Amino acid sequence: MSKSLSDIRFNEQGLVPVVVQAAETHEVLMLAWMNAHTVELTMTTGRATYWSRSRQEVWVKGATSGATQEVRELRVDCDGDTLLLLVKQTDGACHSGDRTCFDAGLLHDFEVAK
Amino acid sequence: MSKSLSDIRFNEQGLVPVVVQAAETHEVLMLAWMNAHTVELTMTTGRATYWSRSRQEVWVKGATSGATQEVRELRVDCDGDTLLLLVKQTDGACHSGDRTCFDAGLLHDFEVAK
Repeated sequence: MSKSLSDIRFNEQGLVPVVVQAAETHEVLMLAWMNAHTVELTMTTGRATYWSRSRQEVWVKGATSGATQEVRELRVDCDGDTLLLLVKQTDGACHSGDRTCFDAGLLHDFEVAK
Repeated sequence: MSKSLSDIRFNEQGLVPVVVQAAETHEVLMLAWMNAHTVELTMTTGRATYWSRSRQEVWVKGATSGATQEVRELRVDCDGDTLLLLVKQTDGACHSGDRTCFDAGLLHDFEVAK
């Protein structure tokens, strides 16, 4: 079964969270946000394009840094309120230069019960 | 480098989005939300525990369905506003019974430019 743009449920700000995953390595690279316009731009241009909540503007990933994301696949989840974007990532996805935004972030506050 | 609970930036509702990934297969299973209390519960019990936005209550994943998630690792992203939770998933992660919440959701509205 496949889904269409009308299956996406945007939140009260008109945004939907997008989990971005590397198509080849399956690493989770980052979480970003799209509105309806940038979902459309992403799919028609084939370049991951988000809505920057901090700058309140369209953000073509890699436009300034060169760390572009080529679209492989876009999926909508079961209840339509999250997207999963598979990309071919050029260079590091994180503004820090790391491959992913989660590389440096292991939480160490607790001893996980095993 | 590792991060601590104080590095997490909860939103205006006191919540943070959590990308949930299967530790073994690297499939992205779902996106859920945690507040500070359920982050702590997740880490101290070793069982993925979320805040249900629809029911407005603590949600121990799999408590009723049996589709539990055993915590392997919890990561905070570069700017602290997203978590990545690696789990050992029992049965399907999706309430539909699918392995992931994205299984049925390929977006077909556009021809992706390659």
